[in-house]
Amino acid sequence: MFIIGELINGMYQNIGSAIKEKNKEVIQKCAIDQIKAGADALDINCGTASKDPISDIQWLVESVQEVTDKPLALDSSKPGVIESGLKVVKNQAIINSTTADTQKLEILVPLAKKHKARLIGLTISTKGIPQNKDQRLELAANIVSFCSEQEFPLDSLFIDPIVMPVNVAQAQMRDILESIHDFKIISDPAPKTVVGLSNVSQGACTRNLINRIFLTMAVAEGLDAAILDPLDKELVDAAITAELILNKQIYCDSYLDAYRKK
Amino acid sequence: MFIIGELINGMYQNIGSAIKEKNKEVIQKCAIDQIKAGADALDINCGTASKDPISDIQWLVESVQEVTDKPLALDSSKPGVIESGLKVVKNQAIINSTTADTQKLEILVPLAKKHKARLIGLTISTKGIPQNKDQRLELAANIVSFCSEQEFPLDSLFIDPIVMPVNVAQAQMRDILESIHDFKIISDPAPKTVVGLSNVSQGACTRNLINRIFLTMAVAEGLDAAILDPLDKELVDAAITAELILNKQIYCDSYLDAYRKK
Repeated sequence: MFIIGELINGMYQNIGSAIKEKNKEVIQKCAIDQIKAGADALDINCGTASKDPISDIQWLVESVQEVTDKPLALDSSKPGVIESGLKVVKNQAIINSTTADTQKLEILVPLAKKHKARLIGLTISTKGIPQNKDQRLELAANIVSFCSEQEFPLDSLFIDPIVMPVNVAQAQMRDILESIHDFKIISDPAPKTVVGLSNVSQGACTRNLINRIFLTMAVAEGLDAAILDPLDKELVDAAITAELILNKQIYCDSYLDAYRKK
Repeated sequence: MFIIGELINGMYQNIGSAIKEKNKEVIQKCAIDQIKAGADALDINCGTASKDPISDIQWLVESVQEVTDKPLALDSSKPGVIESGLKVVKNQAIINSTTADTQKLEILVPLAKKHKARLIGLTISTKGIPQNKDQRLELAANIVSFCSEQEFPLDSLFIDPIVMPVNVAQAQMRDILESIHDFKIISDPAPKTVVGLSNVSQGACTRNLINRIFLTMAVAEGLDAAILDPLDKELVDAAITAELILNKQIYCDSYLDAYRKK
């Protein structure tokens, strides 16, 4: 699975303070720790407390790029912040994210094309969060067809079904899981799939358990990527083992270590 | 999920010795421990070392029935041993198991009907273990159609896809998981599904991890029941949480405790 480490996010107190104080070491340690734990890419989010995200995202990208060449996912709901980050990204970036709204797609898809970036498309629109699988599929199809028309390569597109907290939207969880499977039959080549995992356990008591069980079930549905906390060792072990069972990782007695050393 | 505790099995040294010495307390403690941990039924297997399984299974059943009313799964490849156990079972039994061979079905389906027992049907035949999903479905369909003809109620039939060790048959695991989903579309009403779980990790190093990840993925495919070690708390937690995500268990902050107290 393609693991996008979620920890460089201004909403976490240590990162928020580091951004404010321009303390590069905190950011760089957070980057290195996540990569050592198995992250394939790093999410970069200034957080809502940032007073100057246009500038802060560049500082974050440049700080992280001093210690790693891994792809960076520029995470903002504001296209201007993403565009600012793209200006300083050296390697292939990931744009996190567009919604299914035409207004957003018209800005972000050409931007992704121009920078040869990958793009995360959320199945959400100005009408709100979808309430069932059909609505998720419809929004995904909007994103996919817009990308097709613009000749954006579909294997660089990641569709996110919008994971809801299980204690809020329990009746929707099965639909969310099945969406992950069904997104794959929207087009050929199929788009990739991604989830922002930690929302599933928001407000719940057994957060880590719920995260890893949901992730395992999502892998069973064919999930390609997840934005998650790679320092949660049991979570990453679950993802690796689920992929082992699907024959996406080769079995050896030390398959967990082998994955992390790859 | 319907959890069938696997621990009363003569292949385990403590149970093998208890059978030999007719030490009822060991058996009864094993029964009570499994039920407290969340088992809905108990598998009863004399093991291959038993010199008189016809008699031993009756002693096991009677010992267990002194401490619990939970359903018992009479586990033997020999119909004569199952028949012997059925003679002393007080509540609804589970016959574990028939193969897809007509010769076996002709004995065990009428026996299950006569005793109003549930029946586990393995997708295996004298030709051996199936090598792909189509072969599993074909064998399952044989069992289902035989049961239909005999007017055996299909909601009392559990189909087992035969779980292989991941370190031996890694390329088959996806087919095994998908079989669990596809068995449900063989007939209406659908048969139930069950796995003998622990085989998946046979010979592997991280047995408990592989067990619980496979089980979680099987629940995602719609699995109804599993024969497993209910004393593996993390395994049962995984099963409960997977069902929580599928909305089969109601969310509350203490959903794990609530399940075990049910």
